[in-house]
Amino acid sequence: MSAIEALKWRYATKKMNGEPVSQDKVDQIIVAAHLAPTSSGLQPYKIIVVTNPELKEKIKAVAYGQSQITDCSHLLIFAAWENYTEENIRAVFARTHQERGLPGDSNSDYVNNLVANYTARSEEENFTHAAKQAYIGFGVAITEAAFLKVDATPMEGFQAAALDELLGLKDLGLRSTTLLPLGYRDAAGDWLVNLKKVRTPLNDFVIEFK
Amino acid sequence: MSAIEALKWRYATKKMNGEPVSQDKVDQIIVAAHLAPTSSGLQPYKIIVVTNPELKEKIKAVAYGQSQITDCSHLLIFAAWENYTEENIRAVFARTHQERGLPGDSNSDYVNNLVANYTARSEEENFTHAAKQAYIGFGVAITEAAFLKVDATPMEGFQAAALDELLGLKDLGLRSTTLLPLGYRDAAGDWLVNLKKVRTPLNDFVIEFK
Repeated sequence: MSAIEALKWRYATKKMNGEPVSQDKVDQIIVAAHLAPTSSGLQPYKIIVVTNPELKEKIKAVAYGQSQITDCSHLLIFAAWENYTEENIRAVFARTHQERGLPGDSNSDYVNNLVANYTARSEEENFTHAAKQAYIGFGVAITEAAFLKVDATPMEGFQAAALDELLGLKDLGLRSTTLLPLGYRDAAGDWLVNLKKVRTPLNDFVIEFK
Repeated sequence: MSAIEALKWRYATKKMNGEPVSQDKVDQIIVAAHLAPTSSGLQPYKIIVVTNPELKEKIKAVAYGQSQITDCSHLLIFAAWENYTEENIRAVFARTHQERGLPGDSNSDYVNNLVANYTARSEEENFTHAAKQAYIGFGVAITEAAFLKVDATPMEGFQAAALDELLGLKDLGLRSTTLLPLGYRDAAGDWLVNLKKVRTPLNDFVIEFK
């Protein structure tokens, strides 16, 4: 098996047709992202799933009117921790140790070091780091959607602060990083669907040290 | 098809056995990352492939001695543009338009806007943005490796400035973001291989707005 054919099939869908994606497929896309690795296994982000039509309209208004936000069936929003805190970090390891049947104070040097390192950094630095972890899961979700022949549009073009306000993310200690509308292409109305997928030439993308 | 079983199989391999990964599989992993989406299709990063044993030793020395760096068969280094420049941005669109058989001045408003927006931002802000795009490809590469039953260890723990110096990345306008050693697990010597994979409970990972 390989992801290559699925990745060739996908494209950043510009026009969706409103057809619903089955909950089963949405769940698979989320589960794939949920399995993606993150730094120290902290999983410092969440996926927000929006199906409410009125809310999608409001989100479109803070996302430059991009039609996929209302024409998609499920809008995924990847939202990262606004900061790493001692509480958050210790909670992850408490659960991990419990699920692995290890004593609660296992790897305490490692955990203490993580807490010391993260809490010494600025909130902005920590948010950026958490956001990068979300991008790993974002890549995995995009790949899984392509396997399932679900169209998706990776989006960074939105007013993050306005979206955070709209969803009350501050109260959850989160900040939005990316959007991923899931749906089905409206091939007749999509200017991009028939254009060739272009990438950096492979020999320019790769540098070898043999 | 789905990536879920492959993602369950993979783990952050702590000990590799030195067995070589075939070039064909390495190529597939790179091609998958190469197909991953990036913001405006700019692909602001490259993948560096290190197989040279002396160089791997030197890299291990700036990566806290992590043994996978020398025990892997191919070390992938994801390195992002240190900045977005007018030249880089226009070069991408010149190639894209050529490959799509469009006039060179197509979408000039869009391209001019991108140039204006990126060049108005600080180098650090632009590097962070480019690095995030690399993380999407990183997620896709990790997934593809898992499909091919190639073990891989996503790594952020290294001295990026020292690695950049070692590889002369500054001269290429690049900065290292993540490492991905590819190889095969040494199950007998790996403390992590038999521990349960733990993730945030799914109902805590997902927030729904219905």
